[in-house]
Amino acid sequence: MTIAIASDHAGFGLKSFLLHKLRERDLPLLDLGCHSEEAVDYPDYGRRMADALRSDAERGILICGSGIGISIAANRFSHVRAAVVSEPLSARLAREHNDANVLCLGGQLIGNWMALECASVFLETPFAKGRHTPRVEMLGTVGA
Amino acid sequence: MTIAIASDHAGFGLKSFLLHKLRERDLPLLDLGCHSEEAVDYPDYGRRMADALRSDAERGILICGSGIGISIAANRFSHVRAAVVSEPLSARLAREHNDANVLCLGGQLIGNWMALECASVFLETPFAKGRHTPRVEMLGTVGA
Repeated sequence: MTIAIASDHAGFGLKSFLLHKLRERDLPLLDLGCHSEEAVDYPDYGRRMADALRSDAERGILICGSGIGISIAANRFSHVRAAVVSEPLSARLAREHNDANVLCLGGQLIGNWMALECASVFLETPFAKGRHTPRVEMLGTVGA
Repeated sequence: MTIAIASDHAGFGLKSFLLHKLRERDLPLLDLGCHSEEAVDYPDYGRRMADALRSDAERGILICGSGIGISIAANRFSHVRAAVVSEPLSARLAREHNDANVLCLGGQLIGNWMALECASVFLETPFAKGRHTPRVEMLGTVGA
């Protein structure tokens, strides 16, 4: 499972930490930028994630200051199910109930270890299917 | 400012509480359902909110179990900027940085008083404009 990761400038520090930690686990990672703390626009990175999920990546992690702006951008794309989380229970529910393929984190709101725990749960938890399946299918067409 | 509010069954209890508390403040409210704890599909309520924001409502509050599924559905619509929050700082940043017009809450994850505080901050905080304006404008076209 290839994992794409992207952030704006406010998420660059947390992205660097997560890349380092996830590389230690030999997970295939795709760094979509940004590559410094120079100001960029978070919607561009939501789009990059959507593009990556159409080609090389199966899952993604997106980071901006609060996680909110970049999640709005990513969820504009019907194949993206992006979940803003700040603790592991939400990360688990996002996988079990929503089959979320993108985790969104607030780089200025949560600490490195909490973010890593959220990412770990997000990467390890399967979709629960059952009653959740038709609702997730609806997320592919609502708004179209 | 008319505020629309909607939830699925897992958010019905919190919706009832927030409606009661916001009515005490004489805020114009639009209850888009659901109207019981009978199981419904959260994507339908994301769509109802998007419709309401095209006509009678200026702001919205959406609630499902975690806030995540209903936020994905609402953000499929380019005029919706829906923010999942679990504490007031995120609610403030969602308004200041993202001009969020919909607050998404996890009815099974946060308590009534925390949710009310998030809603109050969301309703009272203005958009900060400035450097945030072009990014918010991008959210209207990304994914189109």
